[in-house]
Amino acid sequence: MSAAPRAVVLLSGGMDSAVVLAEMRHAGFECHALSFDYGQRHRVELERAAEVAGMLGAASHRTVRIDLRAFGASALTADIAVPKDRDVAAAHDIPVTYVPARNTIFLAHALAMAESTGARDIAIGVNAIDYSGYPDCRPEFVEAFERLANLATRAGVEAAARGERWMRVHVPLLRMGKADIVRRGRALGVDLSRTISCYDPTPAGLPCGRCDACQLRERGFREAG
Amino acid sequence: MSAAPRAVVLLSGGMDSAVVLAEMRHAGFECHALSFDYGQRHRVELERAAEVAGMLGAASHRTVRIDLRAFGASALTADIAVPKDRDVAAAHDIPVTYVPARNTIFLAHALAMAESTGARDIAIGVNAIDYSGYPDCRPEFVEAFERLANLATRAGVEAAARGERWMRVHVPLLRMGKADIVRRGRALGVDLSRTISCYDPTPAGLPCGRCDACQLRERGFREAG
Repeated sequence: MSAAPRAVVLLSGGMDSAVVLAEMRHAGFECHALSFDYGQRHRVELERAAEVAGMLGAASHRTVRIDLRAFGASALTADIAVPKDRDVAAAHDIPVTYVPARNTIFLAHALAMAESTGARDIAIGVNAIDYSGYPDCRPEFVEAFERLANLATRAGVEAAARGERWMRVHVPLLRMGKADIVRRGRALGVDLSRTISCYDPTPAGLPCGRCDACQLRERGFREAG
Repeated sequence: MSAAPRAVVLLSGGMDSAVVLAEMRHAGFECHALSFDYGQRHRVELERAAEVAGMLGAASHRTVRIDLRAFGASALTADIAVPKDRDVAAAHDIPVTYVPARNTIFLAHALAMAESTGARDIAIGVNAIDYSGYPDCRPEFVEAFERLANLATRAGVEAAARGERWMRVHVPLLRMGKADIVRRGRALGVDLSRTISCYDPTPAGLPCGRCDACQLRERGFREAG
């Protein structure tokens, strides 16, 4: 019997990436979780990420430091207030919590880890339905990254020479609303109470209840009953 | 008179990126140089990068730490010997000095810096002629990254809505041989003696003279007279 294929799973400590990890485990992958200490305001999520990784049976969990505060320009990485009580359902702009190129940098690191460890699968919890309007959560972004990944790497080039595709980026939540994510998480046995979604938690690590992420999460739970 | 447009220029301390910086300055850009302390064996290049940035009139120079040693799997970031005395001209494989996803990670950071600082141009010294066979130095890689950059970002999405393209990735050396790079550097007044290309310098920071990078550099100087 061959060993389970390895996958690199981006894990934030939030609900979405926890459900992605459970989904990838369910699909039979040996999951290696990757988190980032990027100077985020809601750094408490990293403790939750470690807990979630253990709870859901990740084979390993690594937190890599990257300095997005060096560039700033986001409410998550600079001294800009996190918007509260926005009408998330009606909003169509990209909010100030957008972090320039964040998912590109996260996926680039996941790609390095995948190629270095023999994984050919990466999973990320982006979601294009109930989301905050971030450009790097859209399907066209994910497709463009997958294409890049296969051109950027030795493994990608070698697979292409055999007429194969090396890297696949899994986005199991892409077309799911928050309520569906809650239901799927429950079905997979994820203890969602251990996750935190808030962008601006209290010093004690409690959610603010008013930022976009808290609102979307709350709505998801309400709709899922 | 409007201010010069800003560009983010990736600067390694080597010959190629120095010529790129000079080329972008020559083209009229206000250049913001970006270097990476990524656990590279040839860390001495960072001192040279700082010197080159000053010498060529970069408006700023920033060195960001990223931990590629966490993933290893390269002679530049792990305890793997740097190959010496290879027949570089005859070699067609991708050597062990290849660092998984390195240029993807570098460009992702440049993208974050560009969007955060109002630059819409990035320049990188990749070269598909006299190079070591790295997949992330090929034109198809650069094109795929540029496409990704415009999909990944708020600035890219907003420009697309106006029917414009936001980000351009400049690769002025892409089709140049090493001798041409030496000649172009001289024409632009770059003091190439201040750059270092070696992958495996001595503790005193002197080039080994035998790695691929030293061989390619040496051949460039010889052919350029």
